[in-house]
Amino acid sequence: MEKITIGIIGAGRIGRMHAENIISIPSIKIKTISDLFVENAIKWAEQIGIQNVTTNYQDILNDPEIDAIFICSPTNTHGEIIKEAARAGKHIFCEKPVSFSTEETKDALEVVKEAGVKLQVGFNRRFDPHFKKVHETVKEGKIGDPHIIKITSRDPEPPPAEYIKNSGGLFFDMAIHDYDMARYVAGSEVEEVYVQGVNLVDPIFKELGDIDTAMTILKFENGAIGIIDNSRKAVYGYDQRVEVFGSKGCVTAQNEHPTNVEISTADGVYKDKLKYFFLERYKEAYMLETHAFIDSILNDKPLVCKGNDGLQAELIAKAAKESHEFGKPVKIKREKFLKV
Amino acid sequence: MEKITIGIIGAGRIGRMHAENIISIPSIKIKTISDLFVENAIKWAEQIGIQNVTTNYQDILNDPEIDAIFICSPTNTHGEIIKEAARAGKHIFCEKPVSFSTEETKDALEVVKEAGVKLQVGFNRRFDPHFKKVHETVKEGKIGDPHIIKITSRDPEPPPAEYIKNSGGLFFDMAIHDYDMARYVAGSEVEEVYVQGVNLVDPIFKELGDIDTAMTILKFENGAIGIIDNSRKAVYGYDQRVEVFGSKGCVTAQNEHPTNVEISTADGVYKDKLKYFFLERYKEAYMLETHAFIDSILNDKPLVCKGNDGLQAELIAKAAKESHEFGKPVKIKREKFLKV
Amino acid sequence: MEKITIGIIGAGRIGRMHAENIISIPSIKIKTISDLFVENAIKWAEQIGIQNVTTNYQDILNDPEIDAIFICSPTNTHGEIIKEAARAGKHIFCEKPVSFSTEETKDALEVVKEAGVKLQVGFNRRFDPHFKKVHETVKEGKIGDPHIIKITSRDPEPPPAEYIKNSGGLFFDMAIHDYDMARYVAGSEVEEVYVQGVNLVDPIFKELGDIDTAMTILKFENGAIGIIDNSRKAVYGYDQRVEVFGSKGCVTAQNEHPTNVEISTADGVYKDKLKYFFLERYKEAYMLETHAFIDSILNDKPLVCKGNDGLQAELIAKAAKESHEFGKPVKIKREKFLKV
Amino acid sequence: MEKITIGIIGAGRIGRMHAENIISIPSIKIKTISDLFVENAIKWAEQIGIQNVTTNYQDILNDPEIDAIFICSPTNTHGEIIKEAARAGKHIFCEKPVSFSTEETKDALEVVKEAGVKLQVGFNRRFDPHFKKVHETVKEGKIGDPHIIKITSRDPEPPPAEYIKNSGGLFFDMAIHDYDMARYVAGSEVEEVYVQGVNLVDPIFKELGDIDTAMTILKFENGAIGIIDNSRKAVYGYDQRVEVFGSKGCVTAQNEHPTNVEISTADGVYKDKLKYFFLERYKEAYMLETHAFIDSILNDKPLVCKGNDGLQAELIAKAAKESHEFGKPVKIKREKFLKV
Repeated sequence: MEKITIGIIGAGRIGRMHAENIISIPSIKIKTISDLFVENAIKWAEQIGIQNVTTNYQDILNDPEIDAIFICSPTNTHGEIIKEAARAGKHIFCEKPVSFSTEETKDALEVVKEAGVKLQVGFNRRFDPHFKKVHETVKEGKIGDPHIIKITSRDPEPPPAEYIKNSGGLFFDMAIHDYDMARYVAGSEVEEVYVQGVNLVDPIFKELGDIDTAMTILKFENGAIGIIDNSRKAVYGYDQRVEVFGSKGCVTAQNEHPTNVEISTADGVYKDKLKYFFLERYKEAYMLETHAFIDSILNDKPLVCKGNDGLQAELIAKAAKESHEFGKPVKIKREKFLKV
Repeated sequence: MEKITIGIIGAGRIGRMHAENIISIPSIKIKTISDLFVENAIKWAEQIGIQNVTTNYQDILNDPEIDAIFICSPTNTHGEIIKEAARAGKHIFCEKPVSFSTEETKDALEVVKEAGVKLQVGFNRRFDPHFKKVHETVKEGKIGDPHIIKITSRDPEPPPAEYIKNSGGLFFDMAIHDYDMARYVAGSEVEEVYVQGVNLVDPIFKELGDIDTAMTILKFENGAIGIIDNSRKAVYGYDQRVEVFGSKGCVTAQNEHPTNVEISTADGVYKDKLKYFFLERYKEAYMLETHAFIDSILNDKPLVCKGNDGLQAELIAKAAKESHEFGKPVKIKREKFLKV
Repeated sequence: MEKITIGIIGAGRIGRMHAENIISIPSIKIKTISDLFVENAIKWAEQIGIQNVTTNYQDILNDPEIDAIFICSPTNTHGEIIKEAARAGKHIFCEKPVSFSTEETKDALEVVKEAGVKLQVGFNRRFDPHFKKVHETVKEGKIGDPHIIKITSRDPEPPPAEYIKNSGGLFFDMAIHDYDMARYVAGSEVEEVYVQGVNLVDPIFKELGDIDTAMTILKFENGAIGIIDNSRKAVYGYDQRVEVFGSKGCVTAQNEHPTNVEISTADGVYKDKLKYFFLERYKEAYMLETHAFIDSILNDKPLVCKGNDGLQAELIAKAAKESHEFGKPVKIKREKFLKV
Repeated sequence: MEKITIGIIGAGRIGRMHAENIISIPSIKIKTISDLFVENAIKWAEQIGIQNVTTNYQDILNDPEIDAIFICSPTNTHGEIIKEAARAGKHIFCEKPVSFSTEETKDALEVVKEAGVKLQVGFNRRFDPHFKKVHETVKEGKIGDPHIIKITSRDPEPPPAEYIKNSGGLFFDMAIHDYDMARYVAGSEVEEVYVQGVNLVDPIFKELGDIDTAMTILKFENGAIGIIDNSRKAVYGYDQRVEVFGSKGCVTAQNEHPTNVEISTADGVYKDKLKYFFLERYKEAYMLETHAFIDSILNDKPLVCKGNDGLQAELIAKAAKESHEFGKPVKIKREKFLKV
């Protein structure tokens, strides 16, 4: 195979971003995109040169020319689509989380495994050059045995109430990225979590049964301990930092600014706020995760981010939610699960 | 009063450092220094121009010329000396912690209160210009309501086994500084703690019933949550950082290096490790805390760091120890206590 | 006009880079690319979807479907092609410098002016977000009147001898970018230059009548003074910095690193070398200059970087060369020339 | 000799600073201070514990108990006092410049040499830990052969007109520090200078025959070239940076801020302006230069900064002044002069 033909399911913000990234890659062709609300999508699809737009994602799964699909539809549809696609022999890129239920995720993963197709979960941050270098630095032993993992992850502003309602809550919607990052840089599974979560940003979160500010303490199988701090509102931009401290040193990835320009005046020294949000901050990472997925299919390379990574992050999110509810540390219930 | 005459109890490392700082201040005279092991101290005292050296600290307390004392003796002697000194009408600077027992500390504070003398506890970091600016930035409302407090506090190398034995453990010896810093920058009392503590640096800690690596989650009365991460061994130097994140912004104090020089070669960009340890990192803070103590006596200004601050940090350390032992969050038992 | 059809003259490194950038822009179509050595180009062109490859650039100029051209051929062909293209009514993007002779450049600019076509000169650094912000900061008056302009511009390694021979020398090949940058950030014309140039990197430069290390002092019409330091070999990467100091402050743009990751060990703190060279450092700028050119054609917006900008930089380079030869300051001979 | 007795000539700002630094050094005693305006000095001297104040500096030179003197009087008195002090057998610390006339300086240095006393010139910046590390990095060969030296040196605000009049002008008063720094970090003598100097900050400079903004290009004997940029007014503080670029790398010393605290808000990221001026920025350097002087006397160690260093910087300043007047490069007239 020299060129891959793909279909995209879901033409919302994230689906369109993937499509626009893909059109600059000569080795991929987007044949079809599906969305329930097809009218908006048609004009956009035409502009970027995608010919087929459908309301029925089955059209994509049934098309023998299509090698792989991108699932960018709402989370509650992921599990079902993964199973159908796997059975249709399509390789799958699925946005995170795989599902809101670890049972459903495990089901989907079993089907994927049986079908022998590739499944990449959209933990885009693993492809960020800064965080990737942190991962590699740890892996190469440059900081010795990891002792302390620290992740800061704060959004620039809260999502709308409508989104919060169906988001799965802070643990499944937002912190799940950080749970994956923690596993990625620590090089170890999480065995226990303790959460201190509060409502400080906006009362709407409390009204909807959610929180907006949280600390998650992680205990890893390799003995290391970790902390993740989350907030739904950092007025200075998208705050995304990672640090791993170990027996021989410490590695840190700092925030990125739109420019590095500093202006010094009689009032002090000023520089830009942080890059605004994920589309700006992880622009390159989104591009790279797509390249890696295609590369994995074309050249049969191992995936950086597999179905099991999706499952593990969900298991942590589930335990975190429980810890928050009961106010005590919770062990991860990790049954034996063959890595896909 | 234009000039103050002081005595120093304890001529160990910290006692000598205070003495050497004080001799450069024209408004203070060190009259006497006491130490059980007087021989070593005599030569040193002579060199820096202190005339009297005694093995009996009572000589200092009984000297009517002496206005104030610095208590730099082992922690288990602090409580008793504070009470005697207060009754003798001396103003008191006492190294942290006031004691290993909150009962003993409360006793001492009562006596101080009755005697009407000043008691400053040696939380030197409050006088560090970087952390002081963090405190002021929060106090002035520049970052809005505090939501998340983060403190990193890692020593460059573990103390000797002999020291560990009598140190009171990580919570009372090391993290107590951070508990005070947390209260100082958050502008609020801590009401609950949860600790995840482990032994990763050296088995000697476990053998002596101590830990060397810890996370403490703090819940503050003002709703904010905090995290302190401690390690007994950061090979790259004394890692001391503070961050307060709030509704309107974030303020951070970074580490200090001996120089800011960067060397760029074909291998990368290199700069100095961090300042080695507390004597280097907090050199200026140690000087400034002495100035502030003297200024408070001479000009009757309020103390930056009072007896109650010592007590509150000890209450947190006690709860942290309990949380570590029982593996669950612990509420601070804060009885009404008049601020001294 | 909603979509632009272009031709590219020259399929060397820089021509291919432009082509690869352009294919990701939906509003442009590359119809033809020309190169004397067509064999290498054919396979590459096919891969990225360009159908026509020719050895004769006239095929491009004679094609009525083609709206605009990119001139990426050797400098000594620029002047002639610009004139032919202008007379054929094509809009022109021309790599820098326009020519090695200010007479030839002026001739070309006259023809462009008469033909009424657009001519953008490839001073890509104007589109770098960092340097653009410096320019804007000065323009908005945030640092007051400019007093001192400082530009550091050092290549990571010298070009091959064959390239040096035909490069026009350090002033026309390398520093010319910096002369343009100086005008761009100072917001003023240069009226005098003094150069101190030496041969320190490699004797080959001296053998070929060139230098490899230089300082150029600039005196601007607005009273400001400037300094540019150039080297052909910075072993730590492509060193590109700009600073403008004025009556109300100072604005600086620092270097960019592949990642911001810092690794602290017992040996010190390390981070990545600089981005390697212009393709990495100015990746975004090359993209943005193409967008700006297209935007100027489609929406008749003013060009950021015109023919006159090319000419002015060449006048400075010429004076710099003279200053170097005669060891004294040289005034810019700027005859009246209507801005294109 | 275990303890040194000194006298200070001149109780102005810089004389008092040295006195206040010295009283914290146990191995030095200040016996006498002289000043023409003795009334102000008496009260101050008493406060810091100096017993003798005189209007006649000869009292200091004639006192057999005094081992060494600090010359902090106006520059036009330096040459005469150095000669008298040397003949009286006193070691000498002299503020920069040694004189405004290189003839006078050479005379003084001859007398010092004959007398066999030590003469340290007050180039305090050599003792700044940041710049010292730059010097050492170059000396150790870590950046290979030096190619380019860059020094930025900008004062936070212009001195009063009265001071400008007697200052010797920008080259002798301000840039002379930078000329010394250039020699110190380049490890080579300067053989030619070219200056571009202008009047941009305040017309008073022009009225008094001075300039306020200047670039000095330096050519060193080892082949390296250098640039110094000076301004009398940087509204954001005392801007003091040094960079040496060489065949194997680059070493830079950046500015220092009162704190490293950063405040991120919806408006951007702010940090403190630079340290205000030389008393803040070089506080530690002033202390260290005194220690080095005393150490040199007590332990017969070589001086870091000798009479010849004063002379060389003056030769550069003289050539710079000439270059500015005649608008062309000027060679340093360096006759053979035995190093003192």
